Amino acid sequence: MNRQWRLAARPVGPVKDSDFEWREEPVPEPAEGQVLVRNVYLSLDPAARGWIRDAPSYMPVVGLGDVMRGIAIGVVEASRHPGFSEGDLVRGMLGWQDYLLSDGRGLTRESRLPGVPLTAHLAVFGHIGLTAYVGVVDIGRPKPGKTMVVTAAAGAVGSLAGQIGKIHGCRVVGIAGSDEKCRWLTQELGFDGAINYKTEQVGEALVRLCPNGIDIDFENVGGEILDAILARINRRARIVVCGLISQYNATAPVPGPYQFARVLIQRARVEGFIVLDHLDRAPAAMADLGRWLAEGKLRYRADVVEGLENAPRALGRLFDGSHQGKLIIQVSAL
Amino acid sequence: MNRQWRLAARPVGPVKDSDFEWREEPVPEPAEGQVLVRNVYLSLDPAARGWIRDAPSYMPVVGLGDVMRGIAIGVVEASRHPGFSEGDLVRGMLGWQDYLLSDGRGLTRESRLPGVPLTAHLAVFGHIGLTAYVGVVDIGRPKPGKTMVVTAAAGAVGSLAGQIGKIHGCRVVGIAGSDEKCRWLTQELGFDGAINYKTEQVGEALVRLCPNGIDIDFENVGGEILDAILARINRRARIVVCGLISQYNATAPVPGPYQFARVLIQRARVEGFIVLDHLDRAPAAMADLGRWLAEGKLRYRADVVEGLENAPRALGRLFDGSHQGKLIIQVSAL
Repeated sequence: MNRQWRLAARPVGPVKDSDFEWREEPVPEPAEGQVLVRNVYLSLDPAARGWIRDAPSYMPVVGLGDVMRGIAIGVVEASRHPGFSEGDLVRGMLGWQDYLLSDGRGLTRESRLPGVPLTAHLAVFGHIGLTAYVGVVDIGRPKPGKTMVVTAAAGAVGSLAGQIGKIHGCRVVGIAGSDEKCRWLTQELGFDGAINYKTEQVGEALVRLCPNGIDIDFENVGGEILDAILARINRRARIVVCGLISQYNATAPVPGPYQFARVLIQRARVEGFIVLDHLDRAPAAMADLGRWLAEGKLRYRADVVEGLENAPRALGRLFDGSHQGKLIIQVSAL
Repeated sequence: MNRQWRLAARPVGPVKDSDFEWREEPVPEPAEGQVLVRNVYLSLDPAARGWIRDAPSYMPVVGLGDVMRGIAIGVVEASRHPGFSEGDLVRGMLGWQDYLLSDGRGLTRESRLPGVPLTAHLAVFGHIGLTAYVGVVDIGRPKPGKTMVVTAAAGAVGSLAGQIGKIHGCRVVGIAGSDEKCRWLTQELGFDGAINYKTEQVGEALVRLCPNGIDIDFENVGGEILDAILARINRRARIVVCGLISQYNATAPVPGPYQFARVLIQRARVEGFIVLDHLDRAPAAMADLGRWLAEGKLRYRADVVEGLENAPRALGRLFDGSHQGKLIIQVSAL
């Protein structure tokens, strides 16, 4: 059977299991020109919360009754498509299901990287790594001696972004939601400092850990944490807006940063970006990320949850802070 | 006598006459190395509200008891400074007073421009023109066919900014506070459209007047008007933050734009700037502005108020919308 999670309702606030409907359908057979892909590793990303909100965004909204959208890596089970053969590893929007029947559009063949577990293909070599790379290198433009702050720093993108900042010679301070995450950032990933926003006064901690102010903010959160950062930015600071996870579950209009006037006073640049616009940077990014990983300058953590049935609850973990690193659902064995 | 307005209190909300103290002192005599300047035209700018707020900003705060800060053009009355002679026209922070005694620092000699009234030196050829020029040309980067919105469009900077956008081939829509101002924008300055925010629903009017969305926002206001714009920006829009006049009189923390997430979704760039950082662009800006003025492509309006005694009340007019174009106090006859 092809087990699926289909969108049943537009979530209000945090996603609930009841926002999705569990369906079991017969596994489809590929017609001429089609390929059948079995889902192996399904990536869960905060952006998914935006895909199911009924508001215009950078991608079409997932319709009620549709299989939930998700990037994944899978294996070709059967192919009547000239571009794919049985056993090929592929990547694409396979969705929250066991099997995707596809005409091949949007699927790319995935080459195994020697010595690299397949989870790292999602945690580093793909949209996550490219997001961190483009955001830091192209938009943040780090320079040695500058101070960079990363919010949601123990998340998939944030943890890479901070390390990329370190590789470029920045002082890097991460903000995360537990002491354990903060220890991981400073003791394993080489961050210069970390702030537990649940137990520390973020503004005071930033003053202590960023004695020369803040030059680059790799922003994944927004809200009060962004305000604490804006209050301490240097002249010509760059605010790289990668995500605003603090408001994805909002049920009422969310005010922008109270410290917005700091953008004017400090002549700062606030720039939003979506990784899909930067796919041309993938070759350079993957080459650098691979080298850094091989050299031991880059580490990642994959948080793998077994079983497609756990996908809705796991998605919620992206917002309650109980995950660490790249959250992945193992849908089937490789 | 040297009549002066000195800062007497930190204004709470809109400035009041009682926030300033009127003083009359003997006219000072220049010592060796000093120059005495008589104030002729005093520029009143919204930024002045920030200079007297007790909060860190891009310039030192005006101290209680100090002569109020203001850019002005004046005439050298007496000089014992090798760089200045009696009768020289000079520009600098002469302040809200009849006479400034100076060691020459911060004063620049001003050449009369043939066929140009002296008010235009403040309204176009100076910080106002440079602000509009840098904001539009360098930060907004207009291109033919793009749509540009200007807020506080009938103000000194806004009216120039919109015209510079037109010169660069943009569709330009201004937002202002009266039908008379709107008529001036469309009928005299060549704006493609204008919105009276006091009588029209700004969002609906933007939809009507910007059928292809908004590519550049030259932002002087902030608040609800900025939100209406952000809701309608195109991908990779640029928000040039020149001013946030809606919040200069605020007495409580002001939330940033409720539509802040649009910066992420539309991959927009929000960039604040202060003209003082861009003085190197003055030669190019003044050359272009002068040519455009001579060619009839650029118009300006000077709103001249007679008498230094009216300065506090006139400053308030920048915030109640009752001025139009460049607000100038005529302190003495040329």
